[in-house]
Parts: sequence; structure tokens; C-alpha cells
Amino acid sequence: MRVNGNHYRTVWMENSSVFMIQQNLLPFQFQIYEAKSCQDTCEAIKTMIVRGAGAIGAAAGFALAQAFYEGKEDIEKARKQIEQTRPTARDLFYATERVYEAAKSSPHPAQAAFQEAQQLAEENVQACKLIGQHGAPLLDVGKWDVNILTHCNAGWLAFVDYGTALASVYHVHGNKEFGYPSIHIYVSETRPRGQGARLTAWELQQQGLPHTIIADSAAASLMARGKIDLVLVGADRIARNYDTANKIGTLEKAILAKEFYIPFCVAAPTSTIDNSLPSGAEIPIEERSQDELLYQEGPTAEGKLEKILICSPGSRAYNPAFDVTPAKYISAIITEKGMIKPAEISRLLL
Amino acid sequence: MRVNGNHYRTVWMENSSVFMIQQNLLPFQFQIYEAKSCQDTCEAIKTMIVRGAGAIGAAAGFALAQAFYEGKEDIEKARKQIEQTRPTARDLFYATERVYEAAKSSPHPAQAAFQEAQQLAEENVQACKLIGQHGAPLLDVGKWDVNILTHCNAGWLAFVDYGTALASVYHVHGNKEFGYPSIHIYVSETRPRGQGARLTAWELQQQGLPHTIIADSAAASLMARGKIDLVLVGADRIARNYDTANKIGTLEKAILAKEFYIPFCVAAPTSTIDNSLPSGAEIPIEERSQDELLYQEGPTAEGKLEKILICSPGSRAYNPAFDVTPAKYISAIITEKGMIKPAEISRLLL
Repeated sequence: MRVNGNHYRTVWMENSSVFMIQQNLLPFQFQIYEAKSCQDTCEAIKTMIVRGAGAIGAAAGFALAQAFYEGKEDIEKARKQIEQTRPTARDLFYATERVYEAAKSSPHPAQAAFQEAQQLAEENVQACKLIGQHGAPLLDVGKWDVNILTHCNAGWLAFVDYGTALASVYHVHGNKEFGYPSIHIYVSETRPRGQGARLTAWELQQQGLPHTIIADSAAASLMARGKIDLVLVGADRIARNYDTANKIGTLEKAILAKEFYIPFCVAAPTSTIDNSLPSGAEIPIEERSQDELLYQEGPTAEGKLEKILICSPGSRAYNPAFDVTPAKYISAIITEKGMIKPAEISRLLL
Repeated sequence: MRVNGNHYRTVWMENSSVFMIQQNLLPFQFQIYEAKSCQDTCEAIKTMIVRGAGAIGAAAGFALAQAFYEGKEDIEKARKQIEQTRPTARDLFYATERVYEAAKSSPHPAQAAFQEAQQLAEENVQACKLIGQHGAPLLDVGKWDVNILTHCNAGWLAFVDYGTALASVYHVHGNKEFGYPSIHIYVSETRPRGQGARLTAWELQQQGLPHTIIADSAAASLMARGKIDLVLVGADRIARNYDTANKIGTLEKAILAKEFYIPFCVAAPTSTIDNSLPSGAEIPIEERSQDELLYQEGPTAEGKLEKILICSPGSRAYNPAFDVTPAKYISAIITEKGMIKPAEISRLLL
């Protein structure tokens, strides 16, 4: 997608280096980070230089290709190291498995790994494009001014390109002939790391899409006053029964949407669905450092990046990074293969 | 209550000055602010040097007493000026009305105004004490470890002393013979101004009460995992039908509590009830500056106070300061006169 008018992908591989938009510097600086080794790429995933389910998946695939390039003796150890960087993202495991299998069954493992990782990234782009097409009709809510609420970042920064939750918006926005109404996005801040206020808002600005940042806890107030027509979010991992793990706060939005009869839609490629997990109860939830809540980083008026304390000194915080939204709250899951409607499915199963 | 082991009230008047804990400096500095004129006190309310329904009410009463002291010609204008500082807080109007009437019907208006304002502050303290007593049985949830979720600050900093939402907690905590279980408070951060993370956490720390800060949007995740037994919040204004205006995010907590069958209780003195308003729809909602969301202030590691940008530069934000929780979501309203149960009342009315 566009950055300062130029086309970019979020993560890509050239020779033995993995390049990525340095997302931990956004929205204040736009820089490309070069991870020269598998080790570098693992660190980049862990420190969230690259983040978002799809982008992490692509980066993980590239990281394993790097491990093969580097001729690592213990390739299983490298794979394990990659898989331990972020435990919740399903795409990561999907990517390492595919690259590993492709390399193992080839006489030229390094080359095969590279090709498979490239193929994975390409599939990610195509899947997001299709998600955008399949989800587009949801934006036709019978009004000229559609107000969409999104949480965290499931735009193109979270994937290799296009994104998931925002893919439909970009699809419609890019096709004026659609005759679709004017779109406005409410961007939920997404504490503690602020991916909504920092990344989604930045991304929407680059795409020229009208948007407004709100505090995470303002969603109910807006819904109660009829200011939200549709909730669109991404997913980090979806269980077999369609329970969905996503950024902390997603469950709240889902419950509120149900209360106010607003469609709550999840957009994700089918690779996010983990059939080995019968339900959301089995999804491991990453607990992150309390410092993410206690401190904030950003530039002063003079442009100097500062880290400040924003809580009572000495108080402790609890920081679960994800929550699980039971399928019953989800109106639809938009995938590259079409739409799944958990509500209908669960009715059939009863 | 206690600060560094000493007893303090949040706001008090001596001679013609109003003294207050300078809440906009908390939790990083503890200082007493002296407002020497009615004008000073108005500014202090507006800039949130003093905040919280009860503390604002007391300050407003003192401000009008100051106006009488100053021998202002147009006392109605002074009253209007005070009432325009913060439009949502009911206690403010209650205080100005009582002080105005007392002064008007006395041959010594300044003295009568001062006495009435003092009386109001004293009543506020006594009401909070009684709220604590009436609410205490709610903490007996049949478990030894009670986990309470609170939002914003409705502790003693929000009143003259004791507070409302936290009054029961302080009451039980201060009476070991109660045989009550061990109390732990989850403090919801309360973006954008962080009154939970900054004020409530600080206050609980001063009182020696175990507590943990969480992101506003982590409440559902905790509730889903059985980690919250009770929600206790304050109120800025309650309509005749018990619809309740309180800090943005309160409505979310109420809806979530209902979804997970957790009692959701509001604590407020009866002076918060505005019988002139038939329902919550008539409560005016204060919209505050977007800068509260876009910027954050706090000390660096070196202790220097800095203001930083935490959102995508150039993006706009919408910042409603309060929301309205319909009475149907409220399990009980704890007042100084006892408990009101909106659910039961509305059932009787049907």
C-alpha cells in the first residue's frame, strides 16, 4: 500500500536479508529495517519491529529460509527459536511448518525454503485481496455515511499488503464505481501499545481515509448513540469452533456490538484457523510486561523521543495481550474463501 | 484520609482561601493549592486541580462563599461562572444553589454563605462515611478473596473524604473485626486522563490496599475468566429513573458485568440524583479537548515532566468525557440513606 505516495509491502526478502517497515518507530518515523540473519529476524519479531498476524507469519517464513541459507546444523532448533518469538500468532506456526516441509523434501533445501517463504508472502497478499472483495458487501449497511469501528491494527501493516479488517474498506475506497457510501472509521486507541492510535490511524492517513481516534472505552457510548454501523477486527488465532483470539479489548467490542445489535465481523485468512484447537479455551494467551501499561513513549513538542511514567509510581499492572471472543458473538468471519457465519453454523450444530 | 501517614481532606476553606490537594500534579507530586479568590477556585475546577463529583461540589460551594466575601456586585454572574466550569457534575449545582439560598435569606450573606459551604463539605464527609457502611455487605460475595473492579476515581480524592465507590472498601479495610475476606482491587486505567492508573492507584497505595492496574479494555477478559466478583463505580449525575452519568467507559463495564452475571454497583450521595431529569437522555455530556487523547504527560526516568504525542501526527480524536449507563444495567445504587435497587424498582413500575 501507499506510504508518502509510494508502494510498499510490510515485509519482504532480498538475497539473504529480510526487509521490513520498522513498525516500532511508526507513526513518528518511517524507516526500513534490514534483518541480516535468522537471529535478527527473530529479534525483530520479538521486539515488534514487525507485528501483526500476517506480517509475523511472512517474517517467520523468511526467518526459517534464512536459517537454511546460513546452513544451520540444528535446523529444528532454529525453527523452535522462531516459533517461540510470539506464542499466540497462528500464522507463525503455519509459515514455519510449510517452509520446513518444503525444504526437507527438496534436494536444495535453502532454495526450496526461500521459494516457499516467497510463495507464502505472495499467498498472504492474494488472500488479503480476496478478503477485501468478499467483505465489501458488508459495508453496504443501507446508509450513505457508514461508520466503522476497528480495534488494534488489522490493516496492511499487520499483513504483507492490504490487511484483513481494513481490506474491504480499501477495496471499496479504491473502486469509486462501487457506488458505496462515504466511509468513516472510528479507530479505537488499543492500549497499552496504542496500535490503533499509532498504526491504524497512520495507515488510514496514508490512504487518505477519514478517521477519528477514540479511547478504547468510548465504544459503548458511540454505539448507544447510533454512531457505529459495523465493527471490523482481525484475528490472531481462530479455534475449530470459531472462537477467536485477538488483541485485548476485542471481546469487549464483540459483547457491546451484540448488546446494540451491530454486526461484529472478524476478517482473517483461513491460515489463522487452527483446527487442532477444539475451542478458544485452548488458545494460549500471551501475557506481556507491565511496563507497556505503566510507561508511554513518544516525541515531545521538540521532536525528542521520551519515555514517561503515566501511572502511580510503585503500582503494579496486569497486561494480558489478547482475549478470546466466543463464536456466539461473531456475526461473520471473512476469509479469502468467502464468509463463515459462526452464528448460523452453531445453530446447525445444536 | 491518609497521605504519607497524615490525615487530609481533598478540599477545605480557611478565612477567604480555598485549599485543595493539587490533583493534576498527582501521583508524581503531592502539593496543596491555595485558591485565593472565587476566580482562582473556578479556574481550579476547570483545569481539574480539583476534580471528582463531591470535591467539585464542595469547591463550588466554597467558591460562591468567596464571591460573597469579595462583595461581588453581580452575585448571579459569579454563580453562573461557577456553574459553567464543569457542566456534568450534579453536585456543583446542588452546592451553588444551597449556598446561594442560605446567603440570600440571611442578613449576613458572606457569613451565611461560608457556614453553608462548610456545612455542605461536612455533609459530604458524613454521606460518604454512611455510603461506606451501607455498601459494606456487598463485599461479602461468599469468597475469601474478593476481586473488585473500579473505574476512574471515586475514592476519597473525588470527594472531601472517604469517597463513594471505594468508601465500602475503606470501611471494611479499616475494621478488621468485620471478618471480611481479603480485598484486591483491579483499577481500570481510565483513558484519556488516567484517573484510575494515576489517582485511584495512588490513593489505594496510600491506604495500603492491594491493587493492580489494567487497561480499560482488559475488563471483559478478566470477567470471562472469573477474576472479577463485583464492579464498584461512582456517579456524576443520576436521573430520576436512575440512569447514571459517569466517566466514559462506565457503560461498557456495566454491559460487560451484566453479560457475565457480575453485580454492577454505583455509589453516590443522594445529592447526585437530579429529579429534574426524567432520564439519562437529558443529561448533558461534556466533550473535552482531543489533546487529552493525543498527548500524555508524565515524568521521565530523570524525573523531568514531559508531554509527549502518543498518536499518529495529524490524526484527530473524539473525546466524550462521560457516558450514560441505563438503570437496567445497575444492580444497586448505594447512597448515604441506604441502597436503591433500580432493577427491582423498574420491575415494580411495570
